[in-house]
Amino acid sequence: MDKFWNDNLEVKEELVEVVKIMKKRVKSSNKLISDILLDMVNNSGKMLRPAFVIISAKFGNYDRKKILPLAAAIEMLHMATLVHDDIIDNALIRRSKPTIQAEYGKDYAVFIGDFLFSQSFLLLSDNINVANLKKVSKVVSRICKGEIDQFESRYDINITINDYLKRIAAKTAALFALSFYVGAYESNCGEELAKILGSIGYNIGIAFQIIDDILDYTGEESVVGKPLCNDIRQGVFTLPLIYSLERNRDEKIISLIKKRNYCEDDIKRIVAFVQQNGGITQSKMLAEKYTKKAFDKIAMLKDSPPKQILIDVTTKLLYRNY
Amino acid sequence: MDKFWNDNLEVKEELVEVVKIMKKRVKSSNKLISDILLDMVNNSGKMLRPAFVIISAKFGNYDRKKILPLAAAIEMLHMATLVHDDIIDNALIRRSKPTIQAEYGKDYAVFIGDFLFSQSFLLLSDNINVANLKKVSKVVSRICKGEIDQFESRYDINITINDYLKRIAAKTAALFALSFYVGAYESNCGEELAKILGSIGYNIGIAFQIIDDILDYTGEESVVGKPLCNDIRQGVFTLPLIYSLERNRDEKIISLIKKRNYCEDDIKRIVAFVQQNGGITQSKMLAEKYTKKAFDKIAMLKDSPPKQILIDVTTKLLYRNY
Repeated sequence: MDKFWNDNLEVKEELVEVVKIMKKRVKSSNKLISDILLDMVNNSGKMLRPAFVIISAKFGNYDRKKILPLAAAIEMLHMATLVHDDIIDNALIRRSKPTIQAEYGKDYAVFIGDFLFSQSFLLLSDNINVANLKKVSKVVSRICKGEIDQFESRYDINITINDYLKRIAAKTAALFALSFYVGAYESNCGEELAKILGSIGYNIGIAFQIIDDILDYTGEESVVGKPLCNDIRQGVFTLPLIYSLERNRDEKIISLIKKRNYCEDDIKRIVAFVQQNGGITQSKMLAEKYTKKAFDKIAMLKDSPPKQILIDVTTKLLYRNY
Repeated sequence: MDKFWNDNLEVKEELVEVVKIMKKRVKSSNKLISDILLDMVNNSGKMLRPAFVIISAKFGNYDRKKILPLAAAIEMLHMATLVHDDIIDNALIRRSKPTIQAEYGKDYAVFIGDFLFSQSFLLLSDNINVANLKKVSKVVSRICKGEIDQFESRYDINITINDYLKRIAAKTAALFALSFYVGAYESNCGEELAKILGSIGYNIGIAFQIIDDILDYTGEESVVGKPLCNDIRQGVFTLPLIYSLERNRDEKIISLIKKRNYCEDDIKRIVAFVQQNGGITQSKMLAEKYTKKAFDKIAMLKDSPPKQILIDVTTKLLYRNY
């Protein structure tokens, strides 16, 4: 289990169980499918989404037998989108290991992702009510649309902060929000509390993705676990660059950006441009704004043990370097 | 609507409604997604699976409001697998038009397929009970596994008839069976009749896929709507070749087959080998065996208008040239 959870043994123990459930669910009579997916489950990162399902469920009548499979299903859905994302991004490395598309080819990656989707829906069908299953399907549609929007707007120097926020809402915050919402709802927290928790998840998700995008500029490769400046290389312009271009329509940089297929020196020039024009600082301020929104909503919740866990996790998550 | 249904106006009219439902469901605020999918829906082939849902449902208390969306969802699921199949197969043409992966690239095709999956599950959630939703998820897993099995066994000259039958059961017959089963079940036919209809669907599916694989050798390109001998080119060995290799381990042919990357002349030699060794005739006999199994089971059903439709459709389908 990722060291992120070392300070939070209550959540960590539950996530260990979630991993066990996932291991059962990715087994197939095709040995290669099993091997690839067991590898992926064994290297499953922070497992934020299942953790959110669990933490949120603890605000209600926590029933492990129901909540842990639900958490596993949500993580498998996320894994499916990662496998397919890596095809689009031509990503070679994720979580410090070769991606499925890099190691086995795009062909396998397509159906490995589909297999995960279907196994996730199979597990969901048993552990969620129909209205929530529909919400999950809608979020998956939204993620797909977000990915296609992002793909279409590559190399677009006119992308706005609003476009960016819409895109990360779809590709990240929607599933964060859903994880909180279904955890609470399926623990009988009631619609009102489930919605508040969902909205906390949404704000955490936006802040988290902005920080992730900042780390693509400022992080250390060995700590982040994937190559830096990957977004720029793919023509995906994120908040730091969008802010900088908004402040300074430097002609040289714009013609460099329009050129595409950047060499290492181009990347360095773009990063320098972003740093000189306050793109990182401005992005951090926006991340803090969403972090504050999340904490303001958390503050509205009644004091309770899960509230304290939520405060701890959110604090750690949004002040991270990996 | 495909001319296949011109003799069967009752089914045709329902399928026209199914197309309308699909058109609503593939709309997205991303114009490209909508355009691509509307094109695909407008060129939707024979729509066998939704037709099976409808015909099977007519054996029970037929409720259009429930059955037509269900039929649309099953077809969208099938469309999703086609979009992803074409990525694996590098297919350029399907239904006489460029495939999504050929026209827009593999990147788009991945998420367009995922979008269809999620929209299908969204529609299913409203029109099916949980037990059947699980069955659908299982069939999708099975299709994925079948595709991966097929991909792994490319260029394998030792593939057996049993391997082949398992593969086509997963990739084709399972969804045929499910279409019949859920149509009947959701029309309150009762478990027993639903299972008989499901098993009719299974046998039709096996026969259908064998015929499809024969047509890849013997059809006319303009009639079939996709390039011929596509399976061999991809290293996918189907029943005609498997039978022929079982009968004659011709060393020259085996070394030719092992060479991979066949030129047109190689393809002609393999096709000639298959014809000379009775691969087509033997395959036709096996298709007829499954066709007979399907008709034997249909004969067990009480005489009724949907039984007559089923006989007509099965007869036409299994004696087709496109």
